Amino acid sequence: MKERIRLDKRIVTENDRFARDLAERFDRAGLLAVNLMSSPGAGKTALLEETARRLAGRLRMAAVDGDLATDRDARRIAQAGMPCRQINTGGGCHLNGRQVAQAIEAYDLDELDILFIENVGNLVCPASFDLGEHRRVVVASTPEGEDKPVKYPVAFRSADCVVLNKIDLVEATGFSPADFSRFVRDLGLDVPLLQLSCKTGEGLDAWIGWLRAEREAVRRAEVPAKE
Amino acid sequence: MKERIRLDKRIVTENDRFARDLAERFDRAGLLAVNLMSSPGAGKTALLEETARRLAGRLRMAAVDGDLATDRDARRIAQAGMPCRQINTGGGCHLNGRQVAQAIEAYDLDELDILFIENVGNLVCPASFDLGEHRRVVVASTPEGEDKPVKYPVAFRSADCVVLNKIDLVEATGFSPADFSRFVRDLGLDVPLLQLSCKTGEGLDAWIGWLRAEREAVRRAEVPAKE
Repeated sequence: MKERIRLDKRIVTENDRFARDLAERFDRAGLLAVNLMSSPGAGKTALLEETARRLAGRLRMAAVDGDLATDRDARRIAQAGMPCRQINTGGGCHLNGRQVAQAIEAYDLDELDILFIENVGNLVCPASFDLGEHRRVVVASTPEGEDKPVKYPVAFRSADCVVLNKIDLVEATGFSPADFSRFVRDLGLDVPLLQLSCKTGEGLDAWIGWLRAEREAVRRAEVPAKE
Repeated sequence: MKERIRLDKRIVTENDRFARDLAERFDRAGLLAVNLMSSPGAGKTALLEETARRLAGRLRMAAVDGDLATDRDARRIAQAGMPCRQINTGGGCHLNGRQVAQAIEAYDLDELDILFIENVGNLVCPASFDLGEHRRVVVASTPEGEDKPVKYPVAFRSADCVVLNKIDLVEATGFSPADFSRFVRDLGLDVPLLQLSCKTGEGLDAWIGWLRAEREAVRRAEVPAKE
């Protein structure tokens, strides 16, 4: 058992080394790197499709997309106008730094304003693997029920922004946004909670606004104002 | 890297030892053990609530329920009339044999017809951990989209039965049951595919029928007919 703990630690350290290197590269390029996590089917890909359409011609964006199998998500995102590299993990339950480092070889980071990292659909494991991102976004969705924040606290606690997707289904699912907000507060989280629907477009302006502000914050940190 | 592979193997072997022991105990008791897997919020707990209500007084059932945190699901299942022990995994992404063995200490297995093991909400990791179950059920739900079988092939390929829940939301979500069935077939799966709604009750008779038949099959295997 002791041996196992030691080895886990070594593996995490290897990922941390990649993550540190990725973070440095993202900073040097002055781009905003966003790591998206959620349950399968919560709408990470739909959110990136909408983001691609709404920011087309305004910000230069690209994505890498993790899935056990298929390139379906990468194709959807690319069709929406955002270059996207698919990472297939085989059986792997999360993206690691090495995979992201390989996938972004395809991009000239200096030419990007935002890099999205769509993680494997899994509310547990991805939360434990730093990918050098500036911001971590956890996407929940109404059909999953209100209590996911307290049942998957590791992921939600690590979030810089919580997106609640599929609010067009509030009535059909009997979902209570107030209860969801209460569960988020129960975790002691003090981050933006953006309610939206990728289907109807409701709430997407706030998401785009958040992205622009965070991208600006990262850019300003990169290029300090001269007195 | 070599070392890591060796160690993974050792860990799996420890779980397999527990799983083998559990399988023997389940067989000796003549009960049907069912391991339920799904994404967070697909409806495993709702399915067990409905099962508890519909089979109350007919079959003797109990459950163990895995979650990272909280005992919300176990309380829901118990309130529906089925004894349920909560297993909190901390950050753990799946149930293992040791946890199940500890949790079922609470039960006299000889007094049960069916034991349900509700796994951690995660379509990836639980699929790799045998818990000694007779049958594995993967629960999908319409809001997750049609393509989950091909994007999470390890879990779906391991299923003895696929349940598609929330068919009351087919219209609201624009879900295509035909596409879902096609994706299931694309995996080469030849197992029952039960479409149902725990909310409206549609399709639940077929689920109960499947459970009864499987329970009977296990019982017959346990007590061979005498000529």
